[in-house]
This record gives sequence, C-alpha cells and structure tokens, in this order.
Amino acid sequence: MALKARALYEFNSENPGEISVKENEIVTLYSEQDIEGWLEGSNSKGERGLFPASYVEILKNDTASTFNNSTSGSRYANIPTGVTSPGLTALSPPAPAQQQHIYQASQGSDEDWDDDWDDSSTVADEPGVVGVNYQRDFDGNGPSTYRMSTSMSKGSNVQQAKSSATVSRNLNRFSTFVKSGGEAFVLGEAAGFVKDGDKICVVTGQYGPEWQENPYPFACTIDDPTKQTKFKGMKSYIAYKLTPTHTQTQVNRRYKHFDWLYGRLVEKFPVISVPHIPEKQATGRFEEDFISKRRKGLIWWMSHMTSHPVLSKCDVFQHFLTCNSTDEKSWKQGKRKAEKDEMVGANFFLTISTPSGPPLDLVEVESKIDGFKAFTKKMDDSVVQVNATTNEFARKQITGFKKEYQKVGQAFKVLGQAFELDQQAYSVGLNQAIAYTGEAYDAIGDYFAEQPRQDVDPLMDLLQLYQGHLANYPDIIHVQKGALTKVKESQKHVEEGKMDAPQADGVNERCNIISFATLAEIQHFHQVRVRDFKAQMQQYLTEQIGFFQKITGKLEEALQKYDNA
Amino acid sequence: MALKARALYEFNSENPGEISVKENEIVTLYSEQDIEGWLEGSNSKGERGLFPASYVEILKNDTASTFNNSTSGSRYANIPTGVTSPGLTALSPPAPAQQQHIYQASQGSDEDWDDDWDDSSTVADEPGVVGVNYQRDFDGNGPSTYRMSTSMSKGSNVQQAKSSATVSRNLNRFSTFVKSGGEAFVLGEAAGFVKDGDKICVVTGQYGPEWQENPYPFACTIDDPTKQTKFKGMKSYIAYKLTPTHTQTQVNRRYKHFDWLYGRLVEKFPVISVPHIPEKQATGRFEEDFISKRRKGLIWWMSHMTSHPVLSKCDVFQHFLTCNSTDEKSWKQGKRKAEKDEMVGANFFLTISTPSGPPLDLVEVESKIDGFKAFTKKMDDSVVQVNATTNEFARKQITGFKKEYQKVGQAFKVLGQAFELDQQAYSVGLNQAIAYTGEAYDAIGDYFAEQPRQDVDPLMDLLQLYQGHLANYPDIIHVQKGALTKVKESQKHVEEGKMDAPQADGVNERCNIISFATLAEIQHFHQVRVRDFKAQMQQYLTEQIGFFQKITGKLEEALQKYDNA
Repeated sequence: MALKARALYEFNSENPGEISVKENEIVTLYSEQDIEGWLEGSNSKGERGLFPASYVEILKNDTASTFNNSTSGSRYANIPTGVTSPGLTALSPPAPAQQQHIYQASQGSDEDWDDDWDDSSTVADEPGVVGVNYQRDFDGNGPSTYRMSTSMSKGSNVQQAKSSATVSRNLNRFSTFVKSGGEAFVLGEAAGFVKDGDKICVVTGQYGPEWQENPYPFACTIDDPTKQTKFKGMKSYIAYKLTPTHTQTQVNRRYKHFDWLYGRLVEKFPVISVPHIPEKQATGRFEEDFISKRRKGLIWWMSHMTSHPVLSKCDVFQHFLTCNSTDEKSWKQGKRKAEKDEMVGANFFLTISTPSGPPLDLVEVESKIDGFKAFTKKMDDSVVQVNATTNEFARKQITGFKKEYQKVGQAFKVLGQAFELDQQAYSVGLNQAIAYTGEAYDAIGDYFAEQPRQDVDPLMDLLQLYQGHLANYPDIIHVQKGALTKVKESQKHVEEGKMDAPQADGVNERCNIISFATLAEIQHFHQVRVRDFKAQMQQYLTEQIGFFQKITGKLEEALQKYDNA
Repeated sequence: MALKARALYEFNSENPGEISVKENEIVTLYSEQDIEGWLEGSNSKGERGLFPASYVEILKNDTASTFNNSTSGSRYANIPTGVTSPGLTALSPPAPAQQQHIYQASQGSDEDWDDDWDDSSTVADEPGVVGVNYQRDFDGNGPSTYRMSTSMSKGSNVQQAKSSATVSRNLNRFSTFVKSGGEAFVLGEAAGFVKDGDKICVVTGQYGPEWQENPYPFACTIDDPTKQTKFKGMKSYIAYKLTPTHTQTQVNRRYKHFDWLYGRLVEKFPVISVPHIPEKQATGRFEEDFISKRRKGLIWWMSHMTSHPVLSKCDVFQHFLTCNSTDEKSWKQGKRKAEKDEMVGANFFLTISTPSGPPLDLVEVESKIDGFKAFTKKMDDSVVQVNATTNEFARKQITGFKKEYQKVGQAFKVLGQAFELDQQAYSVGLNQAIAYTGEAYDAIGDYFAEQPRQDVDPLMDLLQLYQGHLANYPDIIHVQKGALTKVKESQKHVEEGKMDAPQADGVNERCNIISFATLAEIQHFHQVRVRDFKAQMQQYLTEQIGFFQKITGKLEEALQKYDNA
C-alpha cells in the first residue's frame, strides 16, 4: 500500500526537482524517510519531486500528527522542525547539526489563528533582508537559512489565517520569533524555576539599558594547537590549548567541542548575538595554514565570548573552559546538563531581571530598533565592501605590486651588471650602489607581498567575526519586533474588548523584558564594535606605517651606498 | 627621349617597390629628380621601381659623372651622397636635413680598389649592430640610418673588388668611416690650415687619454620658454631663454636653432658623441606638457654640451650661446662661417694634438675599443630595460596603484559613513578617525599617481639622453676600427713590398691620433655617465624616500585621530 501524506500548508515549488502542493492535498510518498528535511513523492497532478517534510503530515493508521524525525521532547508549542529552507537547500548546504533541533508538532490547534491576522500586523520584517549580501563564510548559520521559508510562509499565511484567538499566534513555523521562544514567552507560555545563579541583569547605564558587567572578568588564551590521536592512532584531531585567566588551568578542546558549545549558546540565548565559530572545513584540516587561520578565528571568538557579560558567565561556557579534558566522566555530565538546560529559548527571558523604574517607552524602543536595523544594513554593506576591497588590495600587493617593484629591482640590477663591464676603476662604487638599489627594490617587492599577512589579514578576521554578528541581528531584531507586534495586537484586542487588561499588561511587561534585553545586547554590540574597530584600525595603520618605514629604511640604505660612489 | 642612367654598383632590391640593378646596367629614368635619395625607373628586365640615386650615373649629353642634386662643393674624394638607406626608408623617416649633405662624385677612379680587399680585411663591424634595440626617439640620427646600406654594399663589394692600390679604399659609400672623413684622414688626404685656436688637446690623465679640460668651464640655464610671434603674428614659435654663466647675457633660441647647431656639430666632430636634441614633434608644439618636456630635454642636452671639453669650446656653440638674438646680421654671419668651416670631418682630426710620448699600443687600443663596444651593447640593453620597466612602473602607479589605494580609501569612508548611523555618542571620534583614514588612503592614491613625475620622469629623461649617446657610439667605434684596419692593411702591404715604410708610418700616426681622440671621448663618456647616473640614482632614491615618508606622515596623521576616539 502506497504511503500517503496530507499537505498541512500550501507549498509552491521554486526550484527544479520540487513540486507544488496545495493545502490538504494528499500526496503519495516514495519513502517515509526524509532527506535533509525533504520528502520525495508525487502530488495529485502526478508531478514527482521534493517538498518540505514539515509541510505534510504522514497518514498512518493512527494518523498521528507527529512530524518526521521527532526525537526530542517538546519545548514550545506550535514550532515546526527546523528544516532548512527549500529554496536555499539547492544553493547552500543545509543548516549544521547544532541548528537542526527537532521540535514536536503543535500541541495546540492550528485553529487558534486570529481572523485579524494579516501580513502588516504580524512581524514587520522577516530576517533575511539584511543578510542578502553576507558572504557565507560560516556554516549557514546566518539568516539566509530562513530567508526563503519566510517568504513562502507569508504567502500561505494569508490563505490560512482564518482561526481566531485573543492574541494571534504566528502561523509562520520558520519564524525566528516563534522558533526562538520569543512568541511563547510574550504570550506567557514560558515557565520554569529560575535559580538566583541564573539571573541575568539588565541595568541602566550611561547610554541606556546594558548588561550588568561580569564582576569577575577574565580572558582566555588559545595556544598553538597540536595534533592528537585516539583509538591507538586510528583517529587524529587538532586540540587547542585553552587557558582561562580565572583558573590558570589549561584545557584541551577540539573544534567539535567549540561547535557543540556554539549550538548550546544559540539555542539558549534568543536575543544575544553569539559570535560565530570559524567555518568548518572538510579537507586540509591538518594543514598548518588552515590550523593557524582557525586558531586566529577562535581567538577572536573567545575574545567576544569572554567580553560578553552574559555569555562569559553562562554555565555551559564555564564548563567548556574549566572541565578537565581528561576527565571524560565530568565532561559528559556537564554536557548532559547543558543539553537538558530548561532555561533556554522562551525560558531564557524568565531569567532576565530588568532595572527598577518605569518600563521602556515602546515607541522609543521601536525607533531605536529601527535605527539599529538601518545601521546593521549599512554596516553590513560597508563590511562587505571593506572585505572585498582589502582582499583585492592584498591580492594586488602579493602579485602585481610585488612584481612591479621586483621588475624595477631587476632592471637596476641589469644596469649595474652592464656598468660592471666598463673597466673603469672610478665607477666600482656606483656599480655596487646600483646593484644594491636593485636588491633593495627586490626586497621592497617582498615587503609588499608579506605585508597583507600583517595588516589586511587581521582586519579581515575582524570583519568576518562582525559579518557573523550582523548575520545574527536580523533574528534578534525579529524577536524584538515580534514582541512589539504582540503588544500592539493586545492593545487593539483590549480596545475591541476581546482581551482583558491584565492579560495585555502581561504581554506588555514581557515585551518590556525582551526590549531591555535587546537594547542591552545592542548596546554591548556597539561598545565592543567601537573597541574592536578602534583597536583594529590602529593596528592596521601602525602596521602600514611600519611597512612604509621599512621601505623607507631600505631605500635610505640604498641611497647611502652612493655617498662614496 | 627617355632619360637614361648607368648603374655604378650592383643594387639588390630588398623591399617592395625597389628594383635590382646590375653594375653597368642601363636603366630608364622617369624623372631626373630624386625623391629623398631615390630615383624611379625601369631596369633592363623591364621591372619598374625605385633604386638609390647614388648608385647610378645619369647619362646626359656630356655624360658628366655628377651625382644628382649636387649643390655644394666637394670635400672628400669618393664620398657618395648621404642618402638614407633604402631598406630603412620604408620603416623610418629619412635622415633630417642636416645630415643630407650632398657631396660631389669621386674625382679619383673607382679602379683604385685593391685586389686584396675582402670583407674580413675591411672594417670589421659596421654600425647598426649595437643600435638594433634603440628606440627611435630622436630624428633618425642613430646608426640605423646606415644599417641597411652597409649590408647591401658588402654584397656588392665582393664582386667589385677588382682594382688595386697601395692602400685599399673602402668601396662602401655609406660607411661611416668613409662618410665621417676618417678614411680620408688616415689615408693622408685631409689638408687644411689649423689655427692655434682650433687646437684640440688630448692629454694623458689618470685613466688614460682624455680631453684637456676646458680652462673656462661654464654652464647655461634654459629658462621657461615663451611663445613668440613674427611677421606681425602670422608665425608663432617657442623661444627658450638661454643664459650662459660666462656671459650672464640671456639669448633667445628656437628649437630650429638647436637643430641647426646639432647638424653642424655632427658634421664637424667624427669621433665625438654629440648629445641628441629632443625629438621633433609636428603637432602639439605649443602644448604646455610638450614644451616642458622639451625644455627638460634641452637642459640635459645643454648640460652635456657645456660639460664636454671639446664641444663646449667650439666656435659654433659659442656663437649659438652668445650671439645677440636680435642682431640678425651677426647671427647670419656666424651661421655662414660655421657652415663654411673647413675643419670638419677629416680635417677635424688635423686639429687634434696628442700627448707627447710614445704612441698608443694599437693592440691595447683595439682591446679597449672592443671592451667598450661590449659595454655599450650591454648598457644599451639595460637602458632599454630600465626605460621600459620604469615607464610601466610609472603607468601602474598612475593607474593601478592609485586605484587600489583609493578603493581602500573609499571602503574606509563607507565604513565610517555606516558607523555614523550608530546613534552612539561615544563612537563619534572613531567615526571621524575612520573617515579621515579613508581620506588618507585617497590622498595616498594621489601621491602614487603624482610620484612618477618626480622620480621616474627625470630618470627616463636621462636614459633618453644616454640612448642617444649609445646610438652615436657604433659610428665612433666604426671610425676607429676603420683606422685600425687601415694600419693592418698598410703593414701587410709593407711586408709584401707594395707600400713604402714612411707611408705606412703616416697611416700609423694618423690612426694614433684617431685612437687618442676616440679613447679621450670614451673616457669622457664614462666620466659623465658615472656622474650623471650617480646623481640621478641619488635623486631617484631621495624622491622615493620622500614619497614613502609622505605616505608614512599621512598614515601617522590618520593614526593620531584614533588617540581620542
């Protein structure tokens, strides 16, 4: 008997190999097993192809509404599996493992949707707009993972927005607002026991809300990684030596540990921009250049982790930094604990403590958020430009500039050699000076080729880290905007008598918490940005000055050779 | 009646449009009038085309053996008109007017040629070999003017070397040795009254024979030229203001005066490398860039003229430097006098006074000349390479380097502009510093584009002057080698009893004079070369150092902006 499934939403094929399905259409499946979030089958028109597994409900004997691959327990209502966007799959690799968290299907009803729901009253902007220009240097963790799905679901939302509820629930199963737990928290659905140690304080600083500083700041060095083996040499890997200043105890960590940690942090902190870890690379993992580049990336990453008041203090990071690498048992204990952490996503917001005093003016908040959104867009564009320009500048220095200076050097050398044929005693000094000048230009050519490693590379490392942050912000902004939208909706419902005031106040209060957290995170971003770019520009210019001084010094040496020529 | 002519020598056509003629062949002329040294007609095979006017004798009623266009009096026996080489005419413009001196046909007999004459016993190397790579920046005054004709006449010489004489006379009518008067002098045919003032002394200096220094050294400035008009504004021209230090009186000279002077000098001094004047240019004569470039070229030219012990003192140059520009009459007097100067070419050698003491060891002289020849070849190659390289280097700085730095500047500016959107008071300093950094890189781009004018251009001006000298030397070497060959021939003839010893001694003595003059000229060349290249390399490096310091200064300014950022 052919396996059947019912389409829960309309899906319009956008790429070759995909097929369109209508809502409630019965499709025939070739296999129950999805391939990276896609199922293969044929629709009622007889077209064969792929469609998102999350868009359909497999019809079994019990017609259970479980989604495919459901393995972990439910955390939030109405959150679909985090499949990669259909459109994007064809263009880029699927989201990495740490993002493929599997959530159980809705416990609530799809009929909860509000009549009033429409495109304009929901979250104004989906992520992906800012991210259009991002270079996909990292493992697809950027907003583009959700870009296509968002635009698709918008289309289907309009058709399906027919149910009603006191506060609308977002249909968009791929929405970050929903996924992150932001919606659940605003709707008052998050619940958990917050220990004192879990408390995350937002305080009012000179420039507005900011994270309370870590009272015990620390840093962490990452020393030259070494190749290590296990299973009697069957498997080898690179271990990085981490030494946090607050423990002074070295631990060895592998890239996969960073990767695991990153996954935990992204899951736990919905409105915190977790710095991206350096890109994965399948080949050349043991090559010196790659290891050195990855180490630099990890150093930048570590710097942003330790300087973040919330990230630096969190349990999973501390476990990562301090757990004895050889104590397999305690490492696994900490790992399990982190993976079972209740205070993630929606519950994270429960841990936030806002400053005493009046709540934020949400109009002002919205204006600030809009300003920041415009800022990130512009900064992203300029980072892309600086990145491309300096990359090309480095390439030119390594190739063209070097070649031009060395050709000049070669020409002078040839001139010196010609002059050596002159048989005149009085020209020996000149001939040597010209030969030296040739060598000087040769050396200058090498200086040009070596320089980008000193100045362009560090600048580009920084830019790459910031490209990661800028790729995070659309999601963060989206969560905050989602909360604001809920506030507006609830106010409207109160006016219309559909909601009672205390319930709306709750939405308001919770939006206030999200806003405090978001503004604190933005403030933190600006502060480290100013710190980082100031330092980096100073380093860049200092390196460039040193470079031109080195050239000048070489030329001065050459000039001196003529003194007695 | 068709105009006829008899071929005096075999001519083998080498280019389209030319026809071959055999010795004594009767050709039909279409016109008696030659076109730049060529006549048009048909040969006995009925082929129509061009052949050198100097290869034929026009058959008139009196069958006078006068060559076409004979206008000036005879100076040397057996020297044909200085037509440009047939092969070269098609490739480059004909020799300038000052080289187209017309000499009367041979008064002696063509039957004077020696039986023993052969390729190897004549001048070993014709000019043109060294000159192959020369860029033809100047007006075709280089050796290539004679290059092709030499190879042609060699072929015909073999067939025609049938007459005999005590010392062979070179058949090659285009040979510089012949043209310059070197041969006539060596053969004892030069005669003239040498006044004391005309005496040119070679002395023995530290490094061998050298020209006696000018006891009254002077320099001459060339100030900014001005546009002047005559014939009530009908004609305009550029006048250069020359102020020699020994008169302190400014005279105005036009390019055509330089050109005329150059012609006189080339005619007068067979073994002196007369510096080439800057190239002629038909269009854009009044454009500022051209005028400025020509002025620089003339300054270099003047520097070489005034620092040359022989050239600086000679009457025609002094007339040029000192004659009142407005005194048309005395200018014309001096001009006529110079044009009627008897002490040119062969007679020039009569004016040379060699040091007392033993004559030069001609074996040693030959070795020195060969060494110098190898040197000029190598120097020419390297000058061509330095010229091409620095030219390309300049081009890259003006285009590519400028663009790269300005693209970096633009990227920083855009980054600064993006950062200005951040609404954070504490980042104003950083934003301004980044904007300034952008401007600094923009300025550095301009520095790169402006720099070649400061360092590459002067270097290339010098190289161009030296390319002119290097183009002169094949002819000078050729004259000296011709004299050496005559010495060898005469020694052989003495051994064979064909020549008496005193006659051979005379050849020897006169070769000694030519050798002294040539070595003195070579010595002078080396000395000014070392002086010029030392100064130029110092200037180049000083400019480059200043350039990189300027960049460093700009970057330091930019760096300081971050101090309070």
